Amino acid sequence: MARPLVQFQPLGRKTEPRKGMTLLEMAGDLGIAIESVCGSTGKCGKCKVFVRSGGDFMAPPTESELRTLGGQAVKTGARLACQARIKTSGNIVVEVPQESQRGHHRLLATGIERKVKLHPGVRKVLLKIPPATMKDLRADDDRLLEVLQKKAKKAAYLSPGTHGHLPDALRGKNWVTTVTLFRDLEVIRAEPGDTTDSVHGVAVDIGTTKVVAYLLDLRSGEVLATESIPNPQIPFGEDLMSRISYTKRNPDGMRKLQGVIVDGLNTLISRLCESKAIRTDEVLEVMIVGNTAMHHIFFGIPAYHLAAAPYAPAVRTSLSVSTSHLGIDAYPFGKVSSLPNIAGFVGADAVSDLLASGLYEDDKLGMMIDIGTNTEIIAGNRRRLVSCSCASGPAFEGAHIGFGMRAATGAIERVWIDPSTHEVTLRTIDDAPPKGICGSGIVDAIAELLKTGVLDPSGRIRIGEGGKRARKGKDGHAEFVLAWARDTSVSQDIVVSQKDIQEIQLAKAAIFTGVSIMMKKLKTEPSTLNRVYAAGAFGTYVDAGAAIRIGMYPDVPQERIKFIGNAAGSGARMCLKSVEMRDLAEKLSRKVEYVELAAERDFQEEFAKAMFLPHRDLSRFPSAASNR
Amino acid sequence: MARPLVQFQPLGRKTEPRKGMTLLEMAGDLGIAIESVCGSTGKCGKCKVFVRSGGDFMAPPTESELRTLGGQAVKTGARLACQARIKTSGNIVVEVPQESQRGHHRLLATGIERKVKLHPGVRKVLLKIPPATMKDLRADDDRLLEVLQKKAKKAAYLSPGTHGHLPDALRGKNWVTTVTLFRDLEVIRAEPGDTTDSVHGVAVDIGTTKVVAYLLDLRSGEVLATESIPNPQIPFGEDLMSRISYTKRNPDGMRKLQGVIVDGLNTLISRLCESKAIRTDEVLEVMIVGNTAMHHIFFGIPAYHLAAAPYAPAVRTSLSVSTSHLGIDAYPFGKVSSLPNIAGFVGADAVSDLLASGLYEDDKLGMMIDIGTNTEIIAGNRRRLVSCSCASGPAFEGAHIGFGMRAATGAIERVWIDPSTHEVTLRTIDDAPPKGICGSGIVDAIAELLKTGVLDPSGRIRIGEGGKRARKGKDGHAEFVLAWARDTSVSQDIVVSQKDIQEIQLAKAAIFTGVSIMMKKLKTEPSTLNRVYAAGAFGTYVDAGAAIRIGMYPDVPQERIKFIGNAAGSGARMCLKSVEMRDLAEKLSRKVEYVELAAERDFQEEFAKAMFLPHRDLSRFPSAASNR
Repeated sequence: MARPLVQFQPLGRKTEPRKGMTLLEMAGDLGIAIESVCGSTGKCGKCKVFVRSGGDFMAPPTESELRTLGGQAVKTGARLACQARIKTSGNIVVEVPQESQRGHHRLLATGIERKVKLHPGVRKVLLKIPPATMKDLRADDDRLLEVLQKKAKKAAYLSPGTHGHLPDALRGKNWVTTVTLFRDLEVIRAEPGDTTDSVHGVAVDIGTTKVVAYLLDLRSGEVLATESIPNPQIPFGEDLMSRISYTKRNPDGMRKLQGVIVDGLNTLISRLCESKAIRTDEVLEVMIVGNTAMHHIFFGIPAYHLAAAPYAPAVRTSLSVSTSHLGIDAYPFGKVSSLPNIAGFVGADAVSDLLASGLYEDDKLGMMIDIGTNTEIIAGNRRRLVSCSCASGPAFEGAHIGFGMRAATGAIERVWIDPSTHEVTLRTIDDAPPKGICGSGIVDAIAELLKTGVLDPSGRIRIGEGGKRARKGKDGHAEFVLAWARDTSVSQDIVVSQKDIQEIQLAKAAIFTGVSIMMKKLKTEPSTLNRVYAAGAFGTYVDAGAAIRIGMYPDVPQERIKFIGNAAGSGARMCLKSVEMRDLAEKLSRKVEYVELAAERDFQEEFAKAMFLPHRDLSRFPSAASNR
Repeated sequence: MARPLVQFQPLGRKTEPRKGMTLLEMAGDLGIAIESVCGSTGKCGKCKVFVRSGGDFMAPPTESELRTLGGQAVKTGARLACQARIKTSGNIVVEVPQESQRGHHRLLATGIERKVKLHPGVRKVLLKIPPATMKDLRADDDRLLEVLQKKAKKAAYLSPGTHGHLPDALRGKNWVTTVTLFRDLEVIRAEPGDTTDSVHGVAVDIGTTKVVAYLLDLRSGEVLATESIPNPQIPFGEDLMSRISYTKRNPDGMRKLQGVIVDGLNTLISRLCESKAIRTDEVLEVMIVGNTAMHHIFFGIPAYHLAAAPYAPAVRTSLSVSTSHLGIDAYPFGKVSSLPNIAGFVGADAVSDLLASGLYEDDKLGMMIDIGTNTEIIAGNRRRLVSCSCASGPAFEGAHIGFGMRAATGAIERVWIDPSTHEVTLRTIDDAPPKGICGSGIVDAIAELLKTGVLDPSGRIRIGEGGKRARKGKDGHAEFVLAWARDTSVSQDIVVSQKDIQEIQLAKAAIFTGVSIMMKKLKTEPSTLNRVYAAGAFGTYVDAGAAIRIGMYPDVPQERIKFIGNAAGSGARMCLKSVEMRDLAEKLSRKVEYVELAAERDFQEEFAKAMFLPHRDLSRFPSAASNR
């Protein structure tokens, strides 16, 4: 008989069971990083795992497990990895859910991709062309297109401007020629000899703050390299509105903003190509996603009208422009393509999220949320889809928060507060001494303050309830100390202030108003959602339980929340690899209904109710209500 | 009863008959310029007219008329205008055939156009677009294309790059927008307000030596202005071959030659637009014709392979490229289109000639000849068309001829030699003192020398037969003096030398070899030709009778020769005005069979026979044979 094993799923790693050891210790030995904040005291609950089989070989749940997880969860196999010990040797299968995997952030940074059939927009075809002779005097174009039609079983035409390639392409390697087809219809390149071993493309997510580019081998679909830069438009305005306003104030503003993003993209392309020792001229197509404003500015389409009602975009349909038209440093007759937009504030990035989520295929009801300065929501299933954009603001990126900072070294990203002592355990990025609080940290902090009763449902800090950490600040308003000055790298107490909490309330209320109105449009309730796809960097890093507790995410069982990471990038890569995905994107962008929240009659009322933590109407947050 | 009138047809001018006056005198009073070289002595025959009715009111034909025109012609109403006098008052209708109209050269310079249904490649459509509101949040592109589809009854798409026009085009004049469609399919422009009153295009004939451009109002089809410049590539090589060789010798040569022709075209466009006070940006399409090499170089397509067997062109099909791609100073998203080519030396200009001739519709057999350094011939009828190119060389442009010059002031363009005295009567351009001989002058001179027996059929000058004008030159070879030094502006005797005659023999032999081989391909004889379309400047200026007498044109009755002038320009204008013409051109360029003369087995033999004046085989020149 084979030796018994403990298997960790879905990671696929195995080890021999050792009596008395915790699952957390064994996972550590295997290099599996499971979340843990409270120092293995069984209090923070972040190390939750599920024992899927072999539970009899485990010691029974401890009191702290029963307390932290609840009796119901424990019955379904939930355990705290720091508490659950091996009793006797036997085969045990442990599932580590996404939210308990400490490493899943990094995996998700590039985004989860759904499998697509490889059928890129550009492909190469090798041709043997009958040479011109005194008995066959046909022109090069007729000669080439005839052979191509026979081989590709489809009539193609030469892209205007590429005719100049023909004489050398045909004669340079003895009438052996490689042609590059765009969408099987347009010959965009003719080269002498066999160059079919190089078919490359670049997918780009132009975010308002960050631009990420992926180099793909389009013969295999493999991502060869990833590069990112801050959006070079930031000096012209931190957010969309200030950039649009820059284009309105400066007659040359549009051209400047377009110029810097094109230069930025060229930098990314040249870095990607350098790292894999290919020429930029071998990049045949660039696939762009971004929000509607980023999309418009990149393509040189005026965006001023996106800043004023009714916010109608200039362009919905997906574009394909020649790289040289935009000055992109790739093959000059190559293509720069984009995914379609849906509305002024639901852009190609949201369509990309939708593709990456698979929501459009789901039978049951689901919702995709991509949280950012604008939060895009698409809800529905394969029959109907509705969308909206919520003005959630930059609080989750650390802006407008006293000790707010971006998710960088020293940022507090996880918070756990001991309900009895109000002592605080923190995790910071790179385990450095605390320097400030990033978005996921502030959400965690507020959720913990709420759970421990330091915060009341209206968002008021109760000074009497938080020990010495809950105090009156220098400005006379209440605050809660997350880290004492001596433990920080900034030599001052790092606090969450009453004002910070209000900022987060505004932001999460904006998002949940969107959630509510989407559900109303679909004539249902948030709790009926079968799946919530959390997209984007913040959506990946934030603790889903905390996000539910503060009333930002709909109150669904946590296993229904699926993290899809930087889904905008994933969708761009999927479309770069598959024209069917592009056609689908085009179809979806027409199908998805857009709801302008500001024009909804019950917007104000919904917003006011969503300002509460988690919500004024607790029937919408049954788990929060039962936790009281 | 109305007063009797003399009408001159087809010019439509009328005057009262005055007894005793010649038709030439009356025409002169009306400002009708009828050819006349011999000083109204009835000898040169150039003033031939036809009296179509009222012949009874005319004095009977004189002896010189009977001698010069022949009895048969006189029976059908032919008269010499310098001899034919009014006998009694009455209604008389006189037809002045094209070749007798001295002014017809100028008319023909722009070329005869065939009527086409106005349906340009670019057209404007005025749209009223429903404004974007909070209740209608659609994107500008969806909004515009929907209205356009309803109005144009056809689905169109926005040209890549033009999306940037939309926000201003829709909002600039209160949602009244003018879109410009290319071929009813592609929106190339969207402008605020109603701009449908400006739809302009430019047709261009890029000749090896001269570039002619026409500005057209595409709402009416009217030619608004014409401009021309010498081809700015001339400094890089006088003829095609030397220019192609320049591109082979200089790595940057291609780009340079393309650059100067694009600059030249921009000069023409700006002059045309200035003269009519329109912006160059209002020129929406430019239609290009030229020989294959000019075509390739203009579009930046390597042409080196056109200089070596098998001379296959890179591109046959017609092109449409954006103006900005080529750097043309017109509307940046406008089009530069070209007619298709047939072969390496039968280019878009020949296709243009074919369109302007109408040969492709003829039931009976015809032939189009466009004489130049390369002479293009297309022969056949609506069922079958064959084509070839003859290396006729630049002799007809005055090159390689001792006193040769271009057709400019002082050039001898008409010659008449008195058969008894061998005295010479000349006409020069602008009636200036003779300075040299242009192409039509040398053909005239040789035809006259042949007629008067000074020249024998092998092309030898018989010194004994030409009076004192036929003499031995300083180089020891025979020559014939056309103008004595005292009468010239160059203070030396202007002569036709034995060597000049040989140059013309070579040139005309090249052409007639083409004619013969075309006829062989069609299994017929030159004399069966129902129509000969003479295209091009030289074909317009040369005297058809003289051209037949020296054996350059096939020997058909002169009324079968139709002068179509600069037909390359005409065809370009026809295609600019009509997409049906473009489609027809594309069809014809595939239909016309190309014959590579050098590869024909009987080329040498035919050439040798055609060196004779008019031909070794006189059965091919029955009129010449009967004139003996």
